[in-house]
This record gives sequence, structure tokens and C-alpha cells, in this order.
Amino acid sequence: MNLDRLLERAEALYPQVVEWRRYLHRHPELSFAETKTAQYIENILNGFGGLIVTRPTASSVMARLVGARPGRTLAIRADIDALPIQEDTGLPFASQVQGVMHACGHDGHTATVLGVARVLSEHAEELEGEIRFLFQHAEELPPGGADEMIAAGVMDGVNHVIGAHLQSPVEVGRVGVVAGPMLASPDTFTITITGKGGHAAEPHKTVDAIAIGAQVVTNLQHIASRTTDPMKPLVVSVTQFIGGHAHNVIPGSVQLCGTVRCMDTELRADVPRRMERILAGITQAHEAEYELQYHYGYRPLVNDPEVTRVVADAVAELFGRDALYEIQPSMSADDFSAYLNQAPGTYFNVGAGNKERGIVHPHHHPKFDIDEESLKVGMKVFLASALKLL
Amino acid sequence: MNLDRLLERAEALYPQVVEWRRYLHRHPELSFAETKTAQYIENILNGFGGLIVTRPTASSVMARLVGARPGRTLAIRADIDALPIQEDTGLPFASQVQGVMHACGHDGHTATVLGVARVLSEHAEELEGEIRFLFQHAEELPPGGADEMIAAGVMDGVNHVIGAHLQSPVEVGRVGVVAGPMLASPDTFTITITGKGGHAAEPHKTVDAIAIGAQVVTNLQHIASRTTDPMKPLVVSVTQFIGGHAHNVIPGSVQLCGTVRCMDTELRADVPRRMERILAGITQAHEAEYELQYHYGYRPLVNDPEVTRVVADAVAELFGRDALYEIQPSMSADDFSAYLNQAPGTYFNVGAGNKERGIVHPHHHPKFDIDEESLKVGMKVFLASALKLL
Amino acid sequence: MNLDRLLERAEALYPQVVEWRRYLHRHPELSFAETKTAQYIENILNGFGGLIVTRPTASSVMARLVGARPGRTLAIRADIDALPIQEDTGLPFASQVQGVMHACGHDGHTATVLGVARVLSEHAEELEGEIRFLFQHAEELPPGGADEMIAAGVMDGVNHVIGAHLQSPVEVGRVGVVAGPMLASPDTFTITITGKGGHAAEPHKTVDAIAIGAQVVTNLQHIASRTTDPMKPLVVSVTQFIGGHAHNVIPGSVQLCGTVRCMDTELRADVPRRMERILAGITQAHEAEYELQYHYGYRPLVNDPEVTRVVADAVAELFGRDALYEIQPSMSADDFSAYLNQAPGTYFNVGAGNKERGIVHPHHHPKFDIDEESLKVGMKVFLASALKLL
Amino acid sequence: MNLDRLLERAEALYPQVVEWRRYLHRHPELSFAETKTAQYIENILNGFGGLIVTRPTASSVMARLVGARPGRTLAIRADIDALPIQEDTGLPFASQVQGVMHACGHDGHTATVLGVARVLSEHAEELEGEIRFLFQHAEELPPGGADEMIAAGVMDGVNHVIGAHLQSPVEVGRVGVVAGPMLASPDTFTITITGKGGHAAEPHKTVDAIAIGAQVVTNLQHIASRTTDPMKPLVVSVTQFIGGHAHNVIPGSVQLCGTVRCMDTELRADVPRRMERILAGITQAHEAEYELQYHYGYRPLVNDPEVTRVVADAVAELFGRDALYEIQPSMSADDFSAYLNQAPGTYFNVGAGNKERGIVHPHHHPKFDIDEESLKVGMKVFLASALKLL
Repeated sequence: MNLDRLLERAEALYPQVVEWRRYLHRHPELSFAETKTAQYIENILNGFGGLIVTRPTASSVMARLVGARPGRTLAIRADIDALPIQEDTGLPFASQVQGVMHACGHDGHTATVLGVARVLSEHAEELEGEIRFLFQHAEELPPGGADEMIAAGVMDGVNHVIGAHLQSPVEVGRVGVVAGPMLASPDTFTITITGKGGHAAEPHKTVDAIAIGAQVVTNLQHIASRTTDPMKPLVVSVTQFIGGHAHNVIPGSVQLCGTVRCMDTELRADVPRRMERILAGITQAHEAEYELQYHYGYRPLVNDPEVTRVVADAVAELFGRDALYEIQPSMSADDFSAYLNQAPGTYFNVGAGNKERGIVHPHHHPKFDIDEESLKVGMKVFLASALKLL
Repeated sequence: MNLDRLLERAEALYPQVVEWRRYLHRHPELSFAETKTAQYIENILNGFGGLIVTRPTASSVMARLVGARPGRTLAIRADIDALPIQEDTGLPFASQVQGVMHACGHDGHTATVLGVARVLSEHAEELEGEIRFLFQHAEELPPGGADEMIAAGVMDGVNHVIGAHLQSPVEVGRVGVVAGPMLASPDTFTITITGKGGHAAEPHKTVDAIAIGAQVVTNLQHIASRTTDPMKPLVVSVTQFIGGHAHNVIPGSVQLCGTVRCMDTELRADVPRRMERILAGITQAHEAEYELQYHYGYRPLVNDPEVTRVVADAVAELFGRDALYEIQPSMSADDFSAYLNQAPGTYFNVGAGNKERGIVHPHHHPKFDIDEESLKVGMKVFLASALKLL
Repeated sequence: MNLDRLLERAEALYPQVVEWRRYLHRHPELSFAETKTAQYIENILNGFGGLIVTRPTASSVMARLVGARPGRTLAIRADIDALPIQEDTGLPFASQVQGVMHACGHDGHTATVLGVARVLSEHAEELEGEIRFLFQHAEELPPGGADEMIAAGVMDGVNHVIGAHLQSPVEVGRVGVVAGPMLASPDTFTITITGKGGHAAEPHKTVDAIAIGAQVVTNLQHIASRTTDPMKPLVVSVTQFIGGHAHNVIPGSVQLCGTVRCMDTELRADVPRRMERILAGITQAHEAEYELQYHYGYRPLVNDPEVTRVVADAVAELFGRDALYEIQPSMSADDFSAYLNQAPGTYFNVGAGNKERGIVHPHHHPKFDIDEESLKVGMKVFLASALKLL
Repeated sequence: MNLDRLLERAEALYPQVVEWRRYLHRHPELSFAETKTAQYIENILNGFGGLIVTRPTASSVMARLVGARPGRTLAIRADIDALPIQEDTGLPFASQVQGVMHACGHDGHTATVLGVARVLSEHAEELEGEIRFLFQHAEELPPGGADEMIAAGVMDGVNHVIGAHLQSPVEVGRVGVVAGPMLASPDTFTITITGKGGHAAEPHKTVDAIAIGAQVVTNLQHIASRTTDPMKPLVVSVTQFIGGHAHNVIPGSVQLCGTVRCMDTELRADVPRRMERILAGITQAHEAEYELQYHYGYRPLVNDPEVTRVVADAVAELFGRDALYEIQPSMSADDFSAYLNQAPGTYFNVGAGNKERGIVHPHHHPKFDIDEESLKVGMKVFLASALKLL
């Protein structure tokens, strides 16, 4: 396949891609309920010809472009769900669904990958290997759709996987990459500390769950400050401390909730063990008991250095090295990490902001918008990277 | 006045005293709403003759027995209010008011002092000085009735004050006294710690009120363990810790509530200052802010050693030294302390339990009862003590 | 025996008692090394006649005055050791031993009881029962001499035991008593917390004994503030925290030392168990280890109420009720508690200060002195109490 | 200049470089006392011809190779000091100085850069710009020699600076680079907390510096766990806690020492302010006082991404891409950071271990050694990088 011709085709297809995006924007659906969206995507893909289109789950779509000659398999993922936010953009194609909005750009992701699929589907005969387009449901709501799709086999035989996220405060035209850790695992926990309630005037006849809970919070700080590698970012936040109902009664128990975020799989496995040890020790010290419910969220998102370099090179060749920027890793999360756990790949950012045109609102904001030129940029990066990766 | 004749009269009056008590038990009224009770007491006192009966407040009664000759003034206090408890004794004279019960023996206190007033009112001409009978409302509900009565002048010119509390687990026939501290001040507090809320993945952009609140609880322990006299009993209990509403959001503030109890007036004044200093220091240390609302409850109850000895001697002479026991001071509270703040006096206990007859339930229990013989014991101790104190 | 005659005799003997005291003051000896002192006492006692004088241990003396008729046995104890303090009083009879001084009044205690023995020994034929004079070594240095003397049998068959301590800031002429708890148990502890040392730049490769030790200190506060009866005085003080030797090395272990003081035998047995539980819990929480060495010092000193009342009555009869004061219990210690553990008795204080004459320095001060009139007061209280107790 | 010819010359010079290194190894000198070492280096450099050799400080040497044509200036730094360690290698050229040893490879650094200077000095006429060879004293001992040399002007007009560190556990033949943060700032602190000493039985008459110090240690954990960006590595270690001298005396003060390490200049400036705030708050909370002495050590070492890429490319071209590895940033320190604060540059690692030959001991070990082939590798990387950077 000749990249220049693919790029020309992408330019030509751009108005159609914008139209797809606006349709999706008008008809947003919440996570795990994207059935009409999936149907819409499926219909479009079926219209391209040459694709094997299936529904791995009730509200997701997979399209396989199998080349004439055998070779490597590349997966390209777009997430398709919207958010429970009331749109306030005033756009002509604003959400027609009360309280639901594509406020994170997934409409753009979907349209971009539809465009890429359209362009590549016209060149199946030249293709060596396979390109698999994954339109994933439920990125916004743990446990997320990625694991369900993987369980349905969408990653079987995949050699590499790539995906993109539009980034609104970043100016359109720029593309961000980062090798290694990029996003965190957003695990959560609920702790119950059970003491023995009683009259506040007689603390010695009680086991004071509030005082013990306070010691637990304080001792948990040691996990990040003392016992884990300072080079490995980690957050252990207790965000809820609920106990007691009267001024003169020591409660029988308290509940602590919170989140643990990190970017390293080994560290991630280690933290609940450390929490458990601290809970066991502190409650034993003061004759109380505890229960820890630890819920694993998405995995840390770690980009493969090689694939990242390939994408970076593609960007540099397309738009010049100055278009590239290095993503600052953050403690946010995305279930694209599930695919990266199956095959080396990378998740890159596509600038979608435009200060001059007032497109400056952050994601999840009721006035969130994107500069649609970013769809064209995204398509080109996917096309150029795909050629390099196959 | 001749004690033996007074005691004989008390014996004779006893059936009437029991009748009064049972009437009161049938018709309990809650704190600050004892209007019918007060009317009942007033009517009885007016029937004795020789007493100046007034209503210091809407639901309390004072009766003055002014002797023919001038002399010292002794106040005797009975509390008259009942509790919001549904009686479950099955007694023929059980409460006729749904959800309200004399479950702390105030009916017995009132009947006893009515009996004492009756006996003494028959000897006004022999009396040197004055005896003032205080039927106080609202002992059970802070801020209590004592302060209101004192504000109305009931303690003006009083030299000594005595009062008694029936004590159910203690066998009838025994009388308890203690010199010095006996009951605590039950102060309460509400603390708000204001940090800065934010996403739990970015604690550095927040001021974590939960972590700071935990440090406050831990540092407050130093008040009792390090900075106050170990000889002076003190409890600082945090009984409520309320903050946060989601696993991934650090809340902007938390609320801590609790109680402070001690038996020493100087220490009592010192504790809120120490709390304030700890709150100021810990919140400054972590860039948060605080607000402390400190509410003073009843005073510590401290018996005068001299008056206590007088009452103890009276008991020993009446019933033998073995009838006496030393009250174990406790962190409970009673607004009799307000009177002791005005004049030296003592608060003694009168055993009202009877294991053989199954009268064993603790105060504030739905099956709480008293052996009515305790009313006779109480009358005698009041009479003998009054003679000694005037 | 006629008390008035005994008191007259005591008056007459007073100059001799002063002389004994001054000799002892000139020749102080340290705890467990009071051999010359014991010899001096023994010689004097042997001179009285009628006493059975023995040496229960190398540096203590017992003198038994066995009455003609059988009866109860009363023990009277004086402690005889001095302190490692350089005297700075400038008195004509100041210590002749470099760095050793009777700075706690034991010279006075000894002379007083010698005087009492002298007076009573003259009336053996009238005596019913036995009086045992115990001149005890090593009160100042744990484990103390009392246990050794008891092991030697000095308390066998004793019904009551009394002792006195001169009290310098209290004016001469006053005598202090207190029923119940008076002095504390001064137990001590040494804790070693073993973590894993390492470079301070890599705390995660260490187990940080300093951070863990800090948590131990903080959690130990809960013993006094949360888990023991606020009515029972308790001090748990960590007085040494020693760990680390370089700015960039986390030490492998730290040592914490301190003292536990209380006045209740049950509580005293409970505290090391609570410490152990906290140490076990906190070190487990943070993967460290601990060792606790707990050393029991003297027992809490608890006076018998009956014997105390007898002594108080004796004082009131001798000097009037105003001479009496109630001792404020304190967290200091004295091994007189060992005798009280064998037989009911009381430890009373004898005022030895004199503001007008400048006798105001506290015990253990290089300028400590006593008003020698206190020896006369002490003798009289012992004599009057002895008559009542036999 | 033709790289291939330079590399050939380096090969030829290699035996001489080894000889220099062994002489230096035999004659190690401690930090700030490297006068003979400096003289030795100066003599050698003077022997090359074409260099302007000076002594910026008493024990350092600078050699300037000024090209025939003007251009950019590149600085190459070698550190020359040894350690107070007794060598135990048994090598024929082992240290002849008792207790002093080149146990960190500075002898190798020096010889390598001497070799580079020798090779380049032969091509001055072809040189465009200037190469400045910095033989720096006192890398091992804060405040280090780099600041002194910079103050003497060695970095004036420098465009880029590079340096290398031999790395013993890494196999010879490999070269490590990393863009961005590589080493930390090793600041230290000494805290004195002043309370009020007193008897351990009366904590309320003291201000307990040990309990307060424990709270300080615990609250300091919040700096790393709560209040700084989890993406920015930070260590705050308290490594010394010294207070108290007796079981029954609460000390008047305690001393805490420790280290702060991070890789971000802004964060570094922020930490002492946060420590100060916590110290002020905690001591105010408990009525104590504090003094904080904060000592700034070396800066964080942050490599310039562009220069790092240039060196990485040079390595890849010399030895193939597999020879390259990415250095894991660590909380160690090096005052090479001072030069990087003056001009963009990079600090790279040169593998010097050889498992087969038993060269496996870590730096600062008495048996530390290097595979001398690493000197050749180092020379080649310097030469190739210099050509690219000028």
C-alpha cells in the first residue's frame, strides 16, 4: 500500500467522517447500553465491503480486514460510549438525549476509526496480514468493556494494538506519545473496622473504632512514604471515614473507603498486601477487627517503547518532529490497558483544542468540544502507523 | 427538734409517701414539661400548712419552711422529671403515658422529699433557720433545670445543700457517700476541619481533610495521656468522624464530634484551650482550617468533705456504720453540681435494689424498679442530716 | 501503758534523739552498703535492754519488743540509707562522706524510731503482744531492701505495720494521712524495635525502625487515654528514643525506654500486656520485630482505711484536728508498699519544714534540711498509734 | 576530524591509558586533598602540547583545547578524588595509601579523559570551537568540587557538557543513557525539638519532646504521601532520633536528623517549606519549640534530552543499538548536576563489570574493581559524541 494515496483518500473522506461524528454526537448512549450506536457502526462497516463485521458483545462491534496474503495482525481500538452529562455547547448537532453527552470525544474516536477502516478496506488485496477494528463499549464505567471484548476473543492472534484519545486542551495538529507508563490502575477499597461500642464516658469498656481508624489512616501513609519505591508513582487515598452518630456514644465500627493508583503491575499487586498487613497489625494492637474489600479496576496503561517509537516516527514524517509532544503520565485510567496486556502497542493523544476558536473546555465539561480537524490528524496517524506495523 | 420523734413520724407517714410515689410513677412527664407534676407537688405542699410554696419556673416548685428563730438555711433538692422510655415492668402503677417512664427513680426522690417536708413542717415553731425544699425540673436534659432555678434565686442565702439519688443495683438499706469529686462534667464538642476537596488521584492538589482529621484524633490523645495531671480523671472521646462520599473524591471537610468529661473545674477550663491549640497546630501543619464549637454541660459534682462527714455520721447513727458505703466516683453527670457550686453540700446515694425480690435492673432500663423501703431510708437520712446541719 | 507518761518520756529523750540523728547525718551510707549504719543502730538498740536485736540482712536491723502477755504484733519501719548527693547545707553536722548525703530525711526516720523503741522498751512488762522495729536498708535503690527483709521473715505474724516519712516543704507540726492509694508502682521498660537498616535514599529496601518507633510512641498513648479506667491514675512515659547515627543511613533498630506508674494492682498487671499487644501489632503492621523488657519496681502503696483512721485519730487527739492534712496521692514510689502487701497498715507524713527558719528545700536537694522538732512529733504519733493498734 | 582515525588512535593509546589509571589507583587522595593527583594530571596534560592547562582550584585541573576556527564549546568532566576505604582487592597496583582507595572508579574516569584529551589534542588545527577538559576534585564530599570550579569560571562560554561514570555491576561493552532526571538532590536536615524536661511520673509538668518528636516523624510522612505530586519521586527519611538518658526523666529536647531526596528543582525548594510548616504546627499544638537546619546538597541531575540523544546515537553507531541501555534513575547523587545547571548536557554510564573475570563488586566496596576495557569504550563514546556536539 502506498501511504500517500491512503492519505489523499483520508482527506477526501474527511467530510463524511465529520458527518459520522456529528450523528454519533447527536445520539449518545451510556456505557453498557450502546446498542443503537453499535447498530449504527455495524451498518456503516457493512456498507464498506470487504470487512468481516461481528458483535463481540451486545453493544460492541469488531470489523476484520483480512489481507490477501498472510502476515501480522494489528488491532485498532475506538471507544464508543458517552457520559451522564447534560450538554451545554449550543452546537447545531448537540446531544438529543437528555442528560447524556459525548463529553469525552468518543464520538470522534469512533468516526476516526470508521474513516481508517473505510480507507484501508479499499486496499484489502494489497494487505499482508490483518487489521482488526475494535469499537468498544463502556470505557467510562468499570469494569469496562475491554475485558469483555478480550474474553470474546477479539485479541486472539493480535501482534500489536494501537488506539488514540482526542485531547481537548492540546491544540489540534499536535500528537502526543509516551513510552512506558502513561495511566494508572484505579483500584478501590472499602475497610470496616469493628471495635466495641459503648458510652463515651467509659472508653475503657469500649474498643474505640474511631481512634483506631485514625491510626489506620496515619499508618497507611507509610505505604507511599516508606515502603514502596519512590521511583514508582503511587497514591493511596482514604476518601471516606464514616463512624458515629451521637456525641456521647463511641460507635462499634467505622468504615473507610478510598482508592489506590499506580503504574506498575508488581507494585499494584503488592499494595493490598501491605494494606492488609497494616490493618491486621493496627487492629490487633488495639483489640479490634477489620474487613478489607479490595476491588481491582483497570490495569496500569504501559505503552510499548518500540511501538511507541514507530508511531512517533510516523507522526514526525507526517507533520514534522515539532508536532510531537511527550505525554505527561498521570494517575487517570483507561481500559485500553487491557489490550496492552495482550499485545505490545501504544495509546497516543491527538490534540483537539483550538484556542482561537474557543475550543478550550476540559473533558467531562458540559461545554466540551473538539476541533474536527483532529479527526483528519488521527486518521493519518493510524494509517501511517498501520503501514509501519504490518 | 427531737430526732426520734421525727423518725417515728416518718415511719407513720410512709404509706402516704408510697402513694405519692405511685401517683407520680403513673403520670410521668418529660424534662422541661413537668407542669402537671409541678401542680401536683404544689397542691400537696400547700396542704401541709406552714410552707411558703412558689414556682421558681414553669415546671418547678420551691417550698420554704421558715423557722420561728433565725439561723442557717439548708436546701434539700429532689428532681421530678421522667425519661423518654417505654415502661415494661408490668407494675399495677406502671406509667400511663406512652413512651414516658420514671426509669431513674425521680418519682421516689420527689415522694421522699415531700415526706421530709411534711414531717418538718409540723415542727416549724421549733426550727432555728430555714429549710428550703427544691423540686427541680429537667435533670435529665441539658442544660438542665438547676441553673434556671438558681437564676430564679432558690439558692440565695443557702448555707448547705443536700440531695439524694436512689441507686437500684445497690441493696436497700445501704447509703453511699463520697467526699470530693463524685460525678463529671459532660461537655461536648463539634469540630469542622476544612481542607480542599479534589480528585483522589491527585492528593497534592487537595488538602486532605480525612488524613488531617486522623492526625487530630491521634494528637488529641495527648491531652489525657501527656498534658494533664494523671491524678485528675479525664476523658476526651471523639465519637463521630464523618467525611467523604465517594471512592475517588477527597472531601473538602470532615466533622468530628465528641465529649469531654472530668471532675476538676480548673482542668475542665483547660481542656478546650488544649483542644484548640492542637486543632490550630495540626491544621496549620497541613494547611487546613478548623472550627471548634465547645458546649459546656453540667459542672463536675464535688461533695463538700465536712457536709459529707455529717451525713455519713447521721447514717452511721441511724443504721450502723455497716450501712455506709463509699461511692465510686464515675464519669456520669447530674446537675445537682450546680447547687454545690453555690453552697457546700453533698449528694448521697440510697440503695433501692432488692435481689431477692428481683429488683435488679439498672437505671434507664424499661424494667427499672425500686424497693420502696428506700423512700423510708431516704427520709430518715434527710431528717437526721437536717438536724445536724442546722 | 499510759500514753501521757510515754509522751513525757519522749520529750525527755528528745535531745538524745537529735544527737543520734546528727551522728547518722554525719555518716551517711549508700543503699545496700549501710553496714556501719546498721552496726551503729544495733549497738544503740542493744544498749536499751529488753529487745531481741538481729540483722535480717547484712545492712538492716530488726529489734523485737515482746510483751509479757501475748497479743497482736505491730511493725514500725524506718529506712536508713542515704543518697549519692554532695551536701551543701553548711550545717555543723554536715555529711563527712564525699558525695553522699542524707538528703531525704532517713537519718530522722531512724532516730525517731530509735526513740520510740527506747521509750517502749522501758514498758515491756506492761506490753500485750509485740512491737517490731524494722530498720530497713536500701529504700532509695530498686529492687529495694523491703523485699529482702520480708524474705528474711520480718513480717511473719505481723498484724499491722506503720511507717512515717518526714516531709520538708510541709511545716513542722502537721501530720498527713491518706486512706487508700498514696504512691505508685514505678515500673520501667526497655523496648528494642528491629527493622532493617539501609540507605536513606531507598527506604523501600529498609524497614524503617525510626518511623515505626514513632508510631509505637503514638499508639502507646492509647493505653492511658482510651483503654484504661480514667478513674485509675496511670502514666506511661517513653523517656528515651535512641536510634540512628548518620544523616543518610536508616538504622536497623531503635531503643525506647520509659516508665509505667499506677496505683492499682490489677491495672499494673494489665499495662505490660497492653504494651506487648501494641508492640506486636505495630511492628507486624510494618514488618519489624520487637523485644520488650519489663521490669517491675516497687508495688503501689495503698494505705488501709482502718489503720489510717486510727493514726488520724491519734494525731487529732495529740495535736488537734487542724494539725492533720490529707496527703495528695502522687506518682512517686516507696518500698514501704511491700510491707502493706503483707499486713494492713499506713504510711503517714510528718511535716519537717520551717519557712521562718529557712528550712524550705525539697527532698533530694543539696541544701535539704529538716526542723528537728519533727522527730518529736513523729515519736509521739508512733507512740499514740501503737497504743491504739495493739 | 575523521572519527575513524580518532578511534584508531584511541585503540593505540589504550595501554598508556591503563598505565595512567593504575598509577592513579596506586596513589589515591581524599576529596579536597587531591594535590599530588592534580600535579600528576597537570604534568601529563602539559606533555601533550597544544593545551592551555590551569588549576582552577588547589586540587583541580582544567585543560583547554582551543580550535583553529571559532565555534561551540564542549566541556568534558572527570572526577579525580578517592574514598576513605581500605582496599582489599589484592591487585598488583592496589592502593599504597593506608585507608584510601579509588573504590568508585574515578581513577578510570581520569585516565579515560586524559586519553580523550591526548587524542583530540593531536587535531587542534582541525577543531572548530573549543573542548574543555575538567579534572574535578571532591565529587565524593559535599559541598563538592563542581561549584568551586564553576565559581572559578570553568563553565563560562560552555555550550554543552558531558561526563561519564563507570558502572561496575553492568557488563563492559554496554553504555547507559537516560533523558531527564537521573540522580537526586541529597539534602540533609537537623531538627531540634525543645520541650520541657521533668520527672517521668509527672508528664503534665513537662512538655514531652519524645512524644512530640514521634508526632513530627509521623506527620512528615504526609509530605511524600499526600502533599507532593506522586509523579515526582521524593524521599523524606528521618534517620536519627536521639533523646533521653534515663528511665524516669522526660528529656528537655530531642534531635531528629535525616535526608530529603528528589529530582525536581521546584519540588526541592518546596520540601523545606513543608517541613517547616509541619514542625511549626506540631510543636505549637503541643507547646514545644523547634529549630530546623536545612542543608542543601548537590542539585538533582537532569540530562538534556537532545544531548542525550546525540550520545545515544553515537553509542549506537559505535557499538550497535544493543549496547545501549536506559539508566534507571535513582535517588543517589553526583555534583555533575552543577555543570548541567550551567549548560545542557548529559551524564552517561559505561559498563565496567565482567562476571566471567569476577569483576562484580559494587562501588564503595573494598574489593571494587573495573574491567579496564571500559576505559577504551569510554574514550570512544567521548570522541564520537564530541564530534557530533561541536
